[in-house]
Amino acid sequence: MKIETLRWFNNRLEMIDQRILPAAFEYLSYYTAHSVAEGIRSMVVRGAPAIGVAAAYGVALEALHLQEKSADDFKAGMDTGFKVLAASRPTAVNLFWALQRMRKVWEGVATQTQQQIAQRLLAEAHEILAEDIRINKAMGANGAALLKDGVRVLTHCNAGALATAGWGTALGVFRSAVEAGKKISVIADETRPFLQGARLTAWEMVQEKIPVTLITDNMAGHLMAHGEIDAVVVGTDRVAANGDVANKIGTYMVAVLAKRHNIPFYVACPLSTIDLDIASGKDIPIEERSVEEVKGFRDYHWAAEGVKIRNPAFDVTPAELVTGLITEKGVVLQPDVQGIRKLFM
Amino acid sequence: MKIETLRWFNNRLEMIDQRILPAAFEYLSYYTAHSVAEGIRSMVVRGAPAIGVAAAYGVALEALHLQEKSADDFKAGMDTGFKVLAASRPTAVNLFWALQRMRKVWEGVATQTQQQIAQRLLAEAHEILAEDIRINKAMGANGAALLKDGVRVLTHCNAGALATAGWGTALGVFRSAVEAGKKISVIADETRPFLQGARLTAWEMVQEKIPVTLITDNMAGHLMAHGEIDAVVVGTDRVAANGDVANKIGTYMVAVLAKRHNIPFYVACPLSTIDLDIASGKDIPIEERSVEEVKGFRDYHWAAEGVKIRNPAFDVTPAELVTGLITEKGVVLQPDVQGIRKLFM
Repeated sequence: MKIETLRWFNNRLEMIDQRILPAAFEYLSYYTAHSVAEGIRSMVVRGAPAIGVAAAYGVALEALHLQEKSADDFKAGMDTGFKVLAASRPTAVNLFWALQRMRKVWEGVATQTQQQIAQRLLAEAHEILAEDIRINKAMGANGAALLKDGVRVLTHCNAGALATAGWGTALGVFRSAVEAGKKISVIADETRPFLQGARLTAWEMVQEKIPVTLITDNMAGHLMAHGEIDAVVVGTDRVAANGDVANKIGTYMVAVLAKRHNIPFYVACPLSTIDLDIASGKDIPIEERSVEEVKGFRDYHWAAEGVKIRNPAFDVTPAELVTGLITEKGVVLQPDVQGIRKLFM
Repeated sequence: MKIETLRWFNNRLEMIDQRILPAAFEYLSYYTAHSVAEGIRSMVVRGAPAIGVAAAYGVALEALHLQEKSADDFKAGMDTGFKVLAASRPTAVNLFWALQRMRKVWEGVATQTQQQIAQRLLAEAHEILAEDIRINKAMGANGAALLKDGVRVLTHCNAGALATAGWGTALGVFRSAVEAGKKISVIADETRPFLQGARLTAWEMVQEKIPVTLITDNMAGHLMAHGEIDAVVVGTDRVAANGDVANKIGTYMVAVLAKRHNIPFYVACPLSTIDLDIASGKDIPIEERSVEEVKGFRDYHWAAEGVKIRNPAFDVTPAELVTGLITEKGVVLQPDVQGIRKLFM
């Protein structure tokens, strides 16, 4: 089954509603930057690369939506559109990367008609989507080469087709390994509170017929201590210039445990996820989400009344714990400032 | 609010149904060893010390239930009662400790009438319950001395009044610290899949008006990295002769992270939880529970269909990661074979 996380259909953006997967599989439609921003914020779409693609379409949709307006209204509306998209989620850098790219296109065609501008922005969004899949496949091939036949590999959260325009980053590595004829089995952390592992990664792997075992987030250490995990591959929302990795909350704990047990810890990371403007992980903004998410799941609450709650959505894994960054341009082992800079030369 | 996890009422054992807390507070009644064993297995009652007390009452109930039977039926029925209780859960050693203690009493009064035997067993169960609370308070005082005023202390699972006959082991330390006039705030891991932290520890601390913050199990590392946790105190289900600690799944991950961040990691542990017959943690049997628990919570399932599931209920933290064992006889720092043996001299 080919998973189209985002698709252009009848002059609108459609996105799989990832909040209700796997119980239901449904597309929601988007016509403006504002509704796309709300879709990102509420996690209809999530995963750093997918957020970037969604934001690019958000810009194009806003231009299409406003193309018959006056020049002033068009410009003011587009400025607001860029702003609400940028404010939707703070941690994934692909969001800002995609918006910057769209803004460059927008500035380059400012003298054209509004209809032409809108079409040019839409073409760029299409290109970002297509590029994302090409990049994932290149990254997948680079990552697959690191995995031995028969490997049992742990992943955290969902860095799959659902986190991208298709194929996936970490799960793309698994897909590419299987395509290359390797046997692999996946261990998926359930990833509280949004349960991306239990709902999305497990679902994707079942669709692909790749053997997958679900565990709660607190079991990885036990399995590592018993020699049941050979490697870890995760995605990322932002990598700093020194190789520090921001990713879904809990990634840091997995990385520390992997180090203790001499298990390689890989991060699948397209270049668009590397933020050279951020020197180290401590400068990466970490989103705190609503406490409602931790009280239970969806509308089913189990937490005791009156308890305070914390809900940081991401954490930072220092570069020293990262065995390698898997990118579309190759693998950077023991990532550091020099190794990462070389990728951009 | 005084929490009576187990109580003797109208010639029967009553236990708080911990599966439905905190949404509902309800006692269930038990009349036989068989029903108590089922209550332990299904986690109406849980927590190593509470399981021990419940098993002792299970033996007494069986004697009361069979006291009018023939001598042969009485003896055969009691033998079966001991067996079903011993088979209810494998990891908590307090279960076997309590059954052994009840068996000794039973052997000591074998020549008395069945009615006298039943009364003697009941008296012993009452004594085990009363002793448990006395021991928890002694342990609490010893542990409280380790905590500085203003400490922010992480706990995993529920080692509270609900895990014992009252007061608690880890949470007993917090209660004793507060009683001694110290300010403390508790960070509670939610503890998937049974959510003892979110449901039971949070509830107990709210009842006691001790500030408590709930996090998912994958957040502890992030908080430690940001200097938001000063100490860890957990309970245990079995401690081996060398100081290795079996406790709720996820404890090991917390211990490894605490070590990395130089945060003291304490284990509150009555002597009845120490198993001198087990040389090291690798010989402690680890219960694998039903995969249903990991699919979701109660009847609400969210995991993708077709995924395999693991559900080890406990893990082992090696003694090298334990800063101190807090017992009713004092604190054993850097526990090892010698330090632990001294407790029993």
